[in-house]
Amino acid sequence: MSIIKVEIRSSAYYDSVILMHLQRALATLPDIIDAGAIMGTEANKHLLVQSGLSAPDVDQASPDDLVIVVKAASEKVAADALKQVDELIEKRRQTTDTEYRPKSLETAVKMLPGAHWVLISVPGRYAADVTREALGYGRNVFLYSDNVSLEDEIDIKRKACELGLMVMGPDCGTAIINHVGLGFANAIRPGPIGLVAASGTGLQQVSSRIHQLGSGITHALGTGGRDLSKDVSGLSTLQGFDLLDRDDATGVIVLISKPPSTEVAERLLRRARRSGKPVVVDFIGHSPVSPQLENLFFSTSFDSAAKKAVELAGALPMTFARQDLDIQGFAPGQRYLRGLFSGGTLAYEALLILQDYLPAVYANIPIHKELRLPDSLISQEHTILDLGEDEFTVGRLHPMMDHDLRIRRLEAEAEDPEVAVILMDVVLGFGAHIDPAGELSPAIRTALQKARSHKRRLDVIVVLVGTDEDPQDMNAQAESLRAAGAYVETSNELAVRRAGEIAARLSTGAEEPCGEPVKLEYIQAPFSAINIGLESFSESLSNQGAAAIQVDWRPPASGNEALMSILERMKAK
Amino acid sequence: MSIIKVEIRSSAYYDSVILMHLQRALATLPDIIDAGAIMGTEANKHLLVQSGLSAPDVDQASPDDLVIVVKAASEKVAADALKQVDELIEKRRQTTDTEYRPKSLETAVKMLPGAHWVLISVPGRYAADVTREALGYGRNVFLYSDNVSLEDEIDIKRKACELGLMVMGPDCGTAIINHVGLGFANAIRPGPIGLVAASGTGLQQVSSRIHQLGSGITHALGTGGRDLSKDVSGLSTLQGFDLLDRDDATGVIVLISKPPSTEVAERLLRRARRSGKPVVVDFIGHSPVSPQLENLFFSTSFDSAAKKAVELAGALPMTFARQDLDIQGFAPGQRYLRGLFSGGTLAYEALLILQDYLPAVYANIPIHKELRLPDSLISQEHTILDLGEDEFTVGRLHPMMDHDLRIRRLEAEAEDPEVAVILMDVVLGFGAHIDPAGELSPAIRTALQKARSHKRRLDVIVVLVGTDEDPQDMNAQAESLRAAGAYVETSNELAVRRAGEIAARLSTGAEEPCGEPVKLEYIQAPFSAINIGLESFSESLSNQGAAAIQVDWRPPASGNEALMSILERMKAK
Repeated sequence: MSIIKVEIRSSAYYDSVILMHLQRALATLPDIIDAGAIMGTEANKHLLVQSGLSAPDVDQASPDDLVIVVKAASEKVAADALKQVDELIEKRRQTTDTEYRPKSLETAVKMLPGAHWVLISVPGRYAADVTREALGYGRNVFLYSDNVSLEDEIDIKRKACELGLMVMGPDCGTAIINHVGLGFANAIRPGPIGLVAASGTGLQQVSSRIHQLGSGITHALGTGGRDLSKDVSGLSTLQGFDLLDRDDATGVIVLISKPPSTEVAERLLRRARRSGKPVVVDFIGHSPVSPQLENLFFSTSFDSAAKKAVELAGALPMTFARQDLDIQGFAPGQRYLRGLFSGGTLAYEALLILQDYLPAVYANIPIHKELRLPDSLISQEHTILDLGEDEFTVGRLHPMMDHDLRIRRLEAEAEDPEVAVILMDVVLGFGAHIDPAGELSPAIRTALQKARSHKRRLDVIVVLVGTDEDPQDMNAQAESLRAAGAYVETSNELAVRRAGEIAARLSTGAEEPCGEPVKLEYIQAPFSAINIGLESFSESLSNQGAAAIQVDWRPPASGNEALMSILERMKAK
Repeated sequence: MSIIKVEIRSSAYYDSVILMHLQRALATLPDIIDAGAIMGTEANKHLLVQSGLSAPDVDQASPDDLVIVVKAASEKVAADALKQVDELIEKRRQTTDTEYRPKSLETAVKMLPGAHWVLISVPGRYAADVTREALGYGRNVFLYSDNVSLEDEIDIKRKACELGLMVMGPDCGTAIINHVGLGFANAIRPGPIGLVAASGTGLQQVSSRIHQLGSGITHALGTGGRDLSKDVSGLSTLQGFDLLDRDDATGVIVLISKPPSTEVAERLLRRARRSGKPVVVDFIGHSPVSPQLENLFFSTSFDSAAKKAVELAGALPMTFARQDLDIQGFAPGQRYLRGLFSGGTLAYEALLILQDYLPAVYANIPIHKELRLPDSLISQEHTILDLGEDEFTVGRLHPMMDHDLRIRRLEAEAEDPEVAVILMDVVLGFGAHIDPAGELSPAIRTALQKARSHKRRLDVIVVLVGTDEDPQDMNAQAESLRAAGAYVETSNELAVRRAGEIAARLSTGAEEPCGEPVKLEYIQAPFSAINIGLESFSESLSNQGAAAIQVDWRPPASGNEALMSILERMKAK
């Protein structure tokens, strides 16, 4: 036989460390079978049920309420335990409260004026306001708190950007700045590798592996898992990358994230390619089409990212000469790429590769269905067409045999004043047309002449698939296409990359949306910080020899929602 | 001034080669500006409009109707041109009809009894029936036709499987069997590489690159682009792989496809790993987590797949010893994997890696939303949990600091008689719990004891993230976990692969759904075939020295739908 007793404290705020210790202290009292001390959210209440700690009263608790549950052999034991709650909380407080703690961020900033950083780990719904306050004092923020809304994240990151400050997070679990670990961080020896990560444990695994492999790091900057979403648009990651790019001690940069939105990935990779440093990219789950692209080295697991970074660090200094593609001569407004493929999988590989270059490419065989071309007969913006798709081949020969459709489409695309590059495949071999160049070359020549007559430059890039033993005479085919003015490659990848590079250079998207760059001093100065929230983070900083001040923070109106809204209304007046 | 005249022939069937030649012949008549000869589908009618060849009558044409349009300087020229249509068609027929052609497959089979293959390129709606007929004569089918329904594809492939025959396609553009190219195919020198591809131009690009790099191939088998979809379930690809695996001349196998359904990928990779041969896998757009897994070598572009295959071919003979993981001692019914992660990105990487092993893994942070766990508090089948997600951390410390939730969940999972493997991360470092093993090891020990008492084997696999300089003493942590009975790795990838391997071995999914294996003779005998449809394919076979017979095929009832349905009803009686 056992009995369960519950106590609910309305609108009571306790630090989650306190709650954990309270639960453990209760559970280890004599004759107590189990105990729980939780905030009354639905998830937490379900967990109580699962742990056999449910009682009818618990259902009434709201997310603001503290719920204390004890399971004991008898009514009396349970009641006695609940009576000790305040005492247990006070005891815990006394063991940790050893020095003076300011009650406000304002005071803390005066006490430690050299602290460029504020660590914030208060409950999510207060976190954005505390962050805004810290930004107001000109401080960068490491925002550990989760349960922060997307709107708040965008707002505080934009504000920070305007001020030349950085917000790592929300939900940023880890960072290492100037060899001091923030939040959760491993002890990594100094070395030439800098990391930016929208992933806490990803960053911990990679930095740990770098250490295990004998190398080390300059800084490891977290950004929060949502930073590379379309809505947040990589604001913090771009700032972090830019810091490491300007930091002379950083020789190799590692970028880690779950797959970013295509648009953000493209912007970030474009920024990374402007760097002279080698950059290891692990967008886990993102499929790089080739392992290297100039100074970018793509990895697909934490392990291989760490290994590649260490290997590159061993080969420093390295320089990467950007292959300088000439983009002179295009008219204003020319910027789009159009792909006219006869081969379905060549078209599909093109779409994959173009993800490294262009934010959105429409297609009749799209990778993501939101990029399906509404009408396959009309291209829009960047477009890749598979003209061998069923829709085009009813009662009609495949485009490898009959070029009529492709030639008509080529004419139409070439007349579009926004088109800069046309990409085509020419597939030789048995079964295919016996002289594709004989039909396509005149059409290409005419298209180029027409563009020139309108004072436009037009690039036609052809991937030629075949062998020297094919019936068509591959070399003669290539010569004919070149003579017509086309650029010819035998690898689809190289042809697509060239087309993508040109289109990307002609696009006008900005890489860095922020006005002010973040000062290097913020990461290069000896690290000191103000901590608001989980006090174990302060202790951890002190243990690492960093100056830290803990703010004795309480939620406004002690977390009482009704009172808070009254205060809000008073402030507004 | 120009005039457009239209002629519509109801329910008329013409081979698409004929139509192309008719269109060209009309367009090159004196004073004709442009011409079109199409079947009256919506897409084709739109194309006429785009080409400036529209006329009011065209709208009334149905997909069964042949539409002939001429644009000329005068009414008379146009009318004269239309009068020549039959003559032009007849002229084309005469230039190609040089030998006797059987009217039926039945006759053709008698004429060329050694032909193991039938090439079919008739219009899509007739293609499945013609295929069924060929299978009935015990012939394998290369099915070039597109616009074949998914239901028909499944039906004919299942039938073929039962008969130990192979259907390549529908929409199979290319294959090379015993050095004879079918459909579209390049001239590739003989060599030790065999290919199976659900992609026509992918296969052409890879085989061409193999030739360009100096190596060569045994066979290149196409399967049709939908073969690796969940519905078709890879029937032809598995047959093709199995053929190449049994073919002694093939030393290296290359598998090419757009990303398969997870379930099919898993089945196919499981089959590939049973092979003693090196296998290059290019599921384009599929992100391999590591470039090699025993005998499997993952590539991410056609170029790199070709290079890897040639490199492996140069290193033959190779043997791959399967690391033999002991899976003795699990009770019947034990088969599921449960991952209890504190690190979100470690959990995510685990999900990615497990795609190589298990068809479906549920998660509270799923890669595909259809695999979202309905209730994060209850695992189902294979499950990976990120216990650091917002839903678990309201008013509660992160699981790196507070192990209570993970320990309770560990107990629950260990009690589930269907669970075989539990995967956990233990993250050390600043900020984390000062002695995770001190809390987790006893729980692991208890869980293992409980499983043993129920005569179950339970594997607990731990990935330990940290360094020797971390405050927790990494070696002591590892020792404690091992002493409790856990298997400890420091790389997430290796830990997850081990767990995935065990769970995959305990799962019961069959690799080969077909009864009868396809006979090697079908690809090893000198190639000869019967061709039904595009006559250029017959010519191409003859040009390559292969025996071929062209069937003078006509659609039932000359393509007249009404008459066809009467014939169908008569057959049914």
